[in-house]
Amino acid sequence: MGQSYTNVGTYFGSVNKVFYEGKDSNNPLAFKYYNPEEIIGNKTMKEHLRFSVAYWHTFTADGTDPFGAATMQRSWDKYQGMDLAKVRVEAAFELFEKLGVPFFAFHDRDIAPEGNTLKETNENLNVIIAMIKEYMKTSNVKLLWNTANMFTHPRFVHGAATSCNADVFAYAAAQVKKGLETAKELGAENYVFWGGREGYETLLNTNLKLELDNLARFMHMAVDYAKEIGFTGQFLIEPKPKEPTTHQYDTDAATTIAFLKQYNLDKYFKLNLEANHATLAGHTFDHELRVARVHGLLGSVDANQGDPLLGWDTDEFPTDLYSTTLAMYEILQNGGLGCGGLNFDAKVRRGSFELEDLVYSHVAGMDAFARGLKVAHKLIEDRVFEDVIAERYHSFTEGIGLDIVEGRANFHTLEQYALNNNSIQNKSGRQERLKAILNQYILEV
Amino acid sequence: MGQSYTNVGTYFGSVNKVFYEGKDSNNPLAFKYYNPEEIIGNKTMKEHLRFSVAYWHTFTADGTDPFGAATMQRSWDKYQGMDLAKVRVEAAFELFEKLGVPFFAFHDRDIAPEGNTLKETNENLNVIIAMIKEYMKTSNVKLLWNTANMFTHPRFVHGAATSCNADVFAYAAAQVKKGLETAKELGAENYVFWGGREGYETLLNTNLKLELDNLARFMHMAVDYAKEIGFTGQFLIEPKPKEPTTHQYDTDAATTIAFLKQYNLDKYFKLNLEANHATLAGHTFDHELRVARVHGLLGSVDANQGDPLLGWDTDEFPTDLYSTTLAMYEILQNGGLGCGGLNFDAKVRRGSFELEDLVYSHVAGMDAFARGLKVAHKLIEDRVFEDVIAERYHSFTEGIGLDIVEGRANFHTLEQYALNNNSIQNKSGRQERLKAILNQYILEV
Amino acid sequence: MGQSYTNVGTYFGSVNKVFYEGKDSNNPLAFKYYNPEEIIGNKTMKEHLRFSVAYWHTFTADGTDPFGAATMQRSWDKYQGMDLAKVRVEAAFELFEKLGVPFFAFHDRDIAPEGNTLKETNENLNVIIAMIKEYMKTSNVKLLWNTANMFTHPRFVHGAATSCNADVFAYAAAQVKKGLETAKELGAENYVFWGGREGYETLLNTNLKLELDNLARFMHMAVDYAKEIGFTGQFLIEPKPKEPTTHQYDTDAATTIAFLKQYNLDKYFKLNLEANHATLAGHTFDHELRVARVHGLLGSVDANQGDPLLGWDTDEFPTDLYSTTLAMYEILQNGGLGCGGLNFDAKVRRGSFELEDLVYSHVAGMDAFARGLKVAHKLIEDRVFEDVIAERYHSFTEGIGLDIVEGRANFHTLEQYALNNNSIQNKSGRQERLKAILNQYILEV
Amino acid sequence: MGQSYTNVGTYFGSVNKVFYEGKDSNNPLAFKYYNPEEIIGNKTMKEHLRFSVAYWHTFTADGTDPFGAATMQRSWDKYQGMDLAKVRVEAAFELFEKLGVPFFAFHDRDIAPEGNTLKETNENLNVIIAMIKEYMKTSNVKLLWNTANMFTHPRFVHGAATSCNADVFAYAAAQVKKGLETAKELGAENYVFWGGREGYETLLNTNLKLELDNLARFMHMAVDYAKEIGFTGQFLIEPKPKEPTTHQYDTDAATTIAFLKQYNLDKYFKLNLEANHATLAGHTFDHELRVARVHGLLGSVDANQGDPLLGWDTDEFPTDLYSTTLAMYEILQNGGLGCGGLNFDAKVRRGSFELEDLVYSHVAGMDAFARGLKVAHKLIEDRVFEDVIAERYHSFTEGIGLDIVEGRANFHTLEQYALNNNSIQNKSGRQERLKAILNQYILEV
Repeated sequence: MGQSYTNVGTYFGSVNKVFYEGKDSNNPLAFKYYNPEEIIGNKTMKEHLRFSVAYWHTFTADGTDPFGAATMQRSWDKYQGMDLAKVRVEAAFELFEKLGVPFFAFHDRDIAPEGNTLKETNENLNVIIAMIKEYMKTSNVKLLWNTANMFTHPRFVHGAATSCNADVFAYAAAQVKKGLETAKELGAENYVFWGGREGYETLLNTNLKLELDNLARFMHMAVDYAKEIGFTGQFLIEPKPKEPTTHQYDTDAATTIAFLKQYNLDKYFKLNLEANHATLAGHTFDHELRVARVHGLLGSVDANQGDPLLGWDTDEFPTDLYSTTLAMYEILQNGGLGCGGLNFDAKVRRGSFELEDLVYSHVAGMDAFARGLKVAHKLIEDRVFEDVIAERYHSFTEGIGLDIVEGRANFHTLEQYALNNNSIQNKSGRQERLKAILNQYILEV
Repeated sequence: MGQSYTNVGTYFGSVNKVFYEGKDSNNPLAFKYYNPEEIIGNKTMKEHLRFSVAYWHTFTADGTDPFGAATMQRSWDKYQGMDLAKVRVEAAFELFEKLGVPFFAFHDRDIAPEGNTLKETNENLNVIIAMIKEYMKTSNVKLLWNTANMFTHPRFVHGAATSCNADVFAYAAAQVKKGLETAKELGAENYVFWGGREGYETLLNTNLKLELDNLARFMHMAVDYAKEIGFTGQFLIEPKPKEPTTHQYDTDAATTIAFLKQYNLDKYFKLNLEANHATLAGHTFDHELRVARVHGLLGSVDANQGDPLLGWDTDEFPTDLYSTTLAMYEILQNGGLGCGGLNFDAKVRRGSFELEDLVYSHVAGMDAFARGLKVAHKLIEDRVFEDVIAERYHSFTEGIGLDIVEGRANFHTLEQYALNNNSIQNKSGRQERLKAILNQYILEV
Repeated sequence: MGQSYTNVGTYFGSVNKVFYEGKDSNNPLAFKYYNPEEIIGNKTMKEHLRFSVAYWHTFTADGTDPFGAATMQRSWDKYQGMDLAKVRVEAAFELFEKLGVPFFAFHDRDIAPEGNTLKETNENLNVIIAMIKEYMKTSNVKLLWNTANMFTHPRFVHGAATSCNADVFAYAAAQVKKGLETAKELGAENYVFWGGREGYETLLNTNLKLELDNLARFMHMAVDYAKEIGFTGQFLIEPKPKEPTTHQYDTDAATTIAFLKQYNLDKYFKLNLEANHATLAGHTFDHELRVARVHGLLGSVDANQGDPLLGWDTDEFPTDLYSTTLAMYEILQNGGLGCGGLNFDAKVRRGSFELEDLVYSHVAGMDAFARGLKVAHKLIEDRVFEDVIAERYHSFTEGIGLDIVEGRANFHTLEQYALNNNSIQNKSGRQERLKAILNQYILEV
Repeated sequence: MGQSYTNVGTYFGSVNKVFYEGKDSNNPLAFKYYNPEEIIGNKTMKEHLRFSVAYWHTFTADGTDPFGAATMQRSWDKYQGMDLAKVRVEAAFELFEKLGVPFFAFHDRDIAPEGNTLKETNENLNVIIAMIKEYMKTSNVKLLWNTANMFTHPRFVHGAATSCNADVFAYAAAQVKKGLETAKELGAENYVFWGGREGYETLLNTNLKLELDNLARFMHMAVDYAKEIGFTGQFLIEPKPKEPTTHQYDTDAATTIAFLKQYNLDKYFKLNLEANHATLAGHTFDHELRVARVHGLLGSVDANQGDPLLGWDTDEFPTDLYSTTLAMYEILQNGGLGCGGLNFDAKVRRGSFELEDLVYSHVAGMDAFARGLKVAHKLIEDRVFEDVIAERYHSFTEGIGLDIVEGRANFHTLEQYALNNNSIQNKSGRQERLKAILNQYILEV
């Protein structure tokens, strides 16, 4: 570091380390529900939730939207180029520590600017990676995952691995190669693919089959290279249905699982699921988590929320307790997220442009998930929904139902059974009652 | 037939057989674009389009909607029970002939009412199946497909093959068994599954994994039984994302293909794709057709259209020329629909309650698809989009691109290439120009 | 009553009167939050909330949906015609009493079936109105509002007051005339218009201007007739954007207010706002309430909720605490609903077909609104948002801001001010912080 | 001009002036349907359509999207600051001439960059306005409208006229004052307000009533100032429901008309309606045009189209012939747009980044509207829909219907009529038939 950026603690000078003060606190810089060392079941809250701060939204986003310029007021914005990249590292570790989060996540281009050539770009990366590695030595924060930004630069206008231009495919390959090396260097627990431009604008000019095949080829190369260099983190793929493309190939959990299976990638990849991407695809967040869970492919979570009345990715900090509770329910049922985590892929609103808002918003999100964890844990402990479901599907544990499940039934035996059974009795699904119970648990845990 | 319903020709007395009169005709009971025997490429329009009338919308729908009672004025509505079932057959064949369609399609409960027991229900079916078979002997119309209605009766309130109640699974099995026998008896070219209740209302009470497994078990039993009885028609499954359920398992083409592959059903099933279901799932119709096509699973089409501003299945007759053109483009690229067809799963608006509207609406839909066929054929003949695509993806036919496609590239070779390639050149995707050309083809073919 | 239906108490035999048992109760037939006599501010919960049971969803709905037949299991369903109408009155008053609700609401056709002529229909109504009046004498329940069903019968296929057929306009007028007489007879506190068919299917056949003019003419006639007979209840109009029509004229609060103002109806009408109609129109429920409130036109509420991922009116019982809290916030800021109330325009899910579900669902909704009331009251008592807003708009209480508000500023003075003011300072809107506070209030009140 | 930018004709060097070549041309730089001097009814196409090029999309947009950087390749992008502003004027007039459009439109910040102070900013504007005025002298192109960009700069983060900060209101006033002076100086035929930030992000921190009042105060000041300086162009307001705000006050035509009427602004303002804003609000474009038309408030059109499956403002060039036909139908029925026009508020796709795409896309849009004009004219000439509507509403031209329309009916007379009328006869609305006719007109005109 030619220049000294050693005054750690000065980027968020107005903010002290955030502690748990409990539900009655009105200190905006205190947790009301997130008590990191509190034991829930067999683990601490911190171990359950594995929170991660997203480098892009928190340290590089500036409040720009399609109709407006930057609004964010950041003390590091007076720097430029590699200097800016360096002070961001300092600011980042200051915030990680003040929030007490165990993880962070980044795209390659978040941490270091592109140079004039790929070589220069990689050299820029090397400088910052070394600096981050240094910081990680004296910090408890780890890298949840890194990824390659293959959507911002104009070269990716028609896609990266699915570009119609083989030169772009090659460039993207070089970029992910470097990303995997970065992951290994920094001990990332996962490596993520989000195919922001891997889709199409119009079918009129699109060879959909070749693009899908190329996407799979690309991922196999990544798997091969990871093996080669001994990167043992989990590969993750993150579905999204659209935006910026008109149609993104990794539309939702089911579609992405289909892609992984078709191309024999499902043994190498799991899913990184985002709440706002779920709703853009027409699904609830817990639906997406459930689908991944029953396929054994739930890997990690991009924790945020959308606005159900807006048709774009608003990436709001998660505060909806229904969403956080049902997400934690699926995660607990999954036995946790393994090496995944809850990464706040969330940005403060453009109007929340003050530095403190970065902290308030993480506190809001961490508290909402902490409450969700407690509620979900209690729901499972009390077997609230489990008992309902066991009773509801009871008929498949005996008689003709068991025959069906165990493969002894066929159309002949079933028809015979049905012809002799003139009084089918169904029972209420009790949806309203279950929602009332959910409310009671959310309020009273 | 204990009673005589012999006055064929009297149900649509105000309507003569519909003939092609050409684009300048203003006869509402004439085709302007559909000229059945006109040769397009190597087949007649009739052979290309394989139109089918949907029994349910056309002969049993009455204009009821969630806020309103029946409005439709049908000459056969004075009958009831089995008498009504019989006159509907007569009316149906009269209309088939007047429209000159080669196919029809039905659910079991469209053609015959349920009895007090399954046995009685099947006996009712037998009577009508025999009558239909008799009519088919002297008619050119064939059965495109039949299916089982496993969504209307309250027994299916929680699903059929995915019901939480094994008795319901058994009943559904008996019903599909009979459906396959019907298909064989009437020479159906396909057998369709649409899982209207195969989904969930709320995950809070749902065992999603068991339901998916049971759905697959059910379909394997159907496949086994078809083999047993020698039914050789194509099995089809029809995706829809929601409605009546909150979430239907066969959400869209990609999700359904994933399901078929996961459970080893993809060698027995193809997809029956509906335009309105596509848009409810957030996709264009041509997207769904393309996805099925590139997987070799495009089987048949439910030809209709939705209202993009309404969130439910409006099942309108297809009149949008963009939609019909791009659908026919995919179908022609698929080499046609094989034993599938264009089934008008479309209903006249509740306000179009006069008998003539049934004819006007089929004429509107048949003309729209006929025009779409001609435009699509000419687009392909002129290689309009093919040439654009060939040029656009040209880089994958040589050099590094060919290495990628043929499996000779890896992250090392690609990085090396990228490091030496500092001037990636992309070309415009030309979307606006392509849309202008599409307009010109639609207008001037 | 020619026949005796005197065994009150037997329709909901499995259900006892519902009492408040507090937040720790797990009795599904007890209130956890709704404590009718608890004082909140200056009124009891009961007085604040003015709950009303909707006759249609609760006593006449049967679980039919566009793809399915009736599922509901009701003890009164063995009756038919006027007998059925009578037992429904008995069942209704039994449920009103068991729930302890102070109000109910109905459409004319909910309470009595149509006869062969309008005269007969009105005679049917007379019988049931007399019966209801009798029941009301010995009950504490009052009629919140009644309305005319001018959407179910096929005569209204093209609208009622906006029909293209003058005979239909006349019929609708006769029906509302009777409705107003009914309102007066039963002491209704309001009379509601919901124009389910007052819109269009396609502009291609629609005289939009004549239809809007006729709608206004109709409402003026209603106002005149109410004056004539001395009905002094509040007129209400209920917005909805679409369904069953493609486009309904009373789209949302703003559009409906515009209509009322344009035709000089705003001094006679207020709005009856429904949560699910708000979301179908692309608005939050609290937005609609706020718009009506700032225009002084917030009259009453149809308390329910929609599914943000479904595009039709699901009319679910309200359980979302964010929605009930923000609704009660607007209502309290409005000084309450006056003679309006919270009418449960909500139906049990088709799968919640047992009689008990009717009670569970009302309990769920009443508890959710009771909690919302307490939270909203505390938020206002603590001036949580009021203080934020006062501070945020402070600049309009002095200097140039006060000049603007008080009409002393113009483009000259403002330009002069702006030219001399080179350092505009904005402050964060603090959205994330405010949402975190809202969560804390919801959980901890 | 300290520097010389005199080489007009070099910015679009690859493009010649675009001429009409007719429907069989495959020259991408020729019109197939837009024949400017062709007489349609009593005016030339050029007079009917009054096309306008949007300065922002065409000369300042760079292909940036929320996930990607600039892609556009423009010869003027080597310049910066005021130099860039000047070459854009040259490029703009070159394109206007090559397209043969009679109008253009701009925001203040499109044509000149902000300076360090408002004074400097206005001085920048003065330079460019003088240059534009000079160009207009030797060109046939006129200014359709100008407007103030009060949404991009961070000062407008919380709104302009509806900001919570009075200083921002003052700044906005100064900006519009300059805008009106610009309009007068350049002979603009209209002055437009689009309130991109005039809405809210969350009601939790919003004084909705004060914001609406301030918005009206602002507009009255604008009206006063226009009178003062003798600007006689038409004021226009452009509705949009959301984006960038969560909720924009000028939601749609009906809401905006309500606002104008409530604050007595409707005699000064008309509406500028955009296709994509209509669909974002849940309406068809022709619905919005119809609503404005029947209120006598249809002023001008932002000609573009959205993607019905995407939830943000895609601002695509208009190519959908249904949309352009029905828009022109409303415009012709309105007697034309008066001093308004068809302004291409449309941008080339990010992937259409070559200079030629700017021309191809305008050609596509102009041809689509030209065809729409011809079809709409013929539909009206043939009274296709007029006759249907006259027949459909015939009952309001005689008897009880005429009594209703002329104010002679009341609930007594109507009830009497209805009691004696036991056979209401409705007729089919014929929607499918009308859509088939529309297709035939689109194809065969």
